[in-house]
Amino acid sequence: MIDKLIEKIKKTHAPIVVGLDPMMNYIPEHIQKKAFAEYGETLEGAAEAIWQFNKEIVDHTYDLIPAVKPQIAMYEQFGIPGLISFQKTVDYCRQKDLVVIGDIKRGDIGSTSAAYAAGHIGTVKVGSKEYMPFGEDFVTVNPYLGTDGVKPFIDVCKQQKKGLFILVKTSNPSSGEFQDRLIDGRPLYELVGEKVAEWGRDCMGESYSYIGAVVGATYPEMGKILRKIMPKSFILVPGYGAQGGKGADLVHFFNDDGLGAIVNSSRGIIAAYKQEEYAQFGEEHFAEASRAAVKAMAEDIDSALKRNK
Amino acid sequence: MIDKLIEKIKKTHAPIVVGLDPMMNYIPEHIQKKAFAEYGETLEGAAEAIWQFNKEIVDHTYDLIPAVKPQIAMYEQFGIPGLISFQKTVDYCRQKDLVVIGDIKRGDIGSTSAAYAAGHIGTVKVGSKEYMPFGEDFVTVNPYLGTDGVKPFIDVCKQQKKGLFILVKTSNPSSGEFQDRLIDGRPLYELVGEKVAEWGRDCMGESYSYIGAVVGATYPEMGKILRKIMPKSFILVPGYGAQGGKGADLVHFFNDDGLGAIVNSSRGIIAAYKQEEYAQFGEEHFAEASRAAVKAMAEDIDSALKRNK
Repeated sequence: MIDKLIEKIKKTHAPIVVGLDPMMNYIPEHIQKKAFAEYGETLEGAAEAIWQFNKEIVDHTYDLIPAVKPQIAMYEQFGIPGLISFQKTVDYCRQKDLVVIGDIKRGDIGSTSAAYAAGHIGTVKVGSKEYMPFGEDFVTVNPYLGTDGVKPFIDVCKQQKKGLFILVKTSNPSSGEFQDRLIDGRPLYELVGEKVAEWGRDCMGESYSYIGAVVGATYPEMGKILRKIMPKSFILVPGYGAQGGKGADLVHFFNDDGLGAIVNSSRGIIAAYKQEEYAQFGEEHFAEASRAAVKAMAEDIDSALKRNK
Repeated sequence: MIDKLIEKIKKTHAPIVVGLDPMMNYIPEHIQKKAFAEYGETLEGAAEAIWQFNKEIVDHTYDLIPAVKPQIAMYEQFGIPGLISFQKTVDYCRQKDLVVIGDIKRGDIGSTSAAYAAGHIGTVKVGSKEYMPFGEDFVTVNPYLGTDGVKPFIDVCKQQKKGLFILVKTSNPSSGEFQDRLIDGRPLYELVGEKVAEWGRDCMGESYSYIGAVVGATYPEMGKILRKIMPKSFILVPGYGAQGGKGADLVHFFNDDGLGAIVNSSRGIIAAYKQEEYAQFGEEHFAEASRAAVKAMAEDIDSALKRNK
């Protein structure tokens, strides 16, 4: 799957991923109204609005991008109906041949991590039958429990040719509270980064490992160091746009081959129509605003990478 | 909710929680057969078997215990049908007046943690209506992202009178890989424990904070230190029984008032009928074996606490 991701990045010239994290206040009124007319102001109504919103954005952007990253929390908050919309979104994006990164940030003790891995990127057995429940291509994983919490995910990746992005340095303001603490003179996130490199060593695709890392765009200097610690790991970079990251901050997350990183933007793309820059599209044409925002983001990153050569 | 938990612990004389983590191989054949006859060997069939298994265990133990802890991964692995069984289990346990600890180990950046908190222990708005999607009483939270990842959960707890158990030192063998690393001469888990105490300070019930911690039974010496660092935090202690912890190891997780900890057992109770000790019940009467195992566990902890006085 890492090879497919890289191939699609090369084809689209866009090392970007669209974060499908639909907050209700991003969803245009006409979509909400239609969903509520059909299902009432219910969890089912909210879930339908999310699904219709996602579908329209995917339809307007899938040819420009290699991957999407639905954030499962935004669906899980609406209970079972919300999770059905998550499932529909994953299925639809796979039909469109997009690589799907499930942003689930799971992580637990061994047997429990194994269950999460089976459910999201693997298969489960029921009697004599086998099923693929959620079917994402990659998932994000929390490393706080150590190797035996991460290993079951890696095992499933090996069997299924799937991949991981493991949290190393997150994009949020207080990520440093634990992640930056010095251990033998070096921050915790570097030790986690070293583990990611080690775990990924025997999980190689053609040129990169399918065990990747999450490193926030908001910490470019740390990205530079982590890039060296994990030379063969793909880095998923959240925090572009709304969280403050810019194209110029991102060059050090990439290797000299122009690869090695994929940058996520959520709000900046899916709610682009709310920005002054794209206001001319109007709420009705929100997905066209998203398409324009994808193009601008790809251009911003591409020119930053070129300037850096 | 912490006050209700304590009241129920005092009433049952059992500071224990039954982990509803149903692996398919724990579920007796007659239950699986019946579920598959009705739904086929499908995800729905697996989910039905889990639900019937849980229901019978709850029916046979609810009067002896204060709380249950369903591990969501064991349901999530069967996709949407599995999560519907999780929901049914939570609802049923609440009907039985049990305190429900959702073992979800979520944790993300601010807005995303807020969505998890709303979905599991809070409410969501849809238009003019408000819903409580999953409705657990407590959830477990992963602290790797720091304060701004945990704070949204705390905010919801304050509004809704719910509670948290934050991962401090987990029960698995490689938990030390990051959690034990020394920072200024002290292990990371102590710093996390200090944060838990700090976060919990303005979240007090009558005698304990509703912001608690997870500390594995497999590390009693660390439990002793963490008990002192977080005097007002309830400690959820996994790892009893199958993972190797015994009653005698647990005394230091408790305060002198005999409170302050609640010990989880999953496999040791829900799959008790598979142990030699309870084999006389037979697979047919698995839930009676669970009841006997609950009594033995309560007795083991109670006598350890008495010996320690």
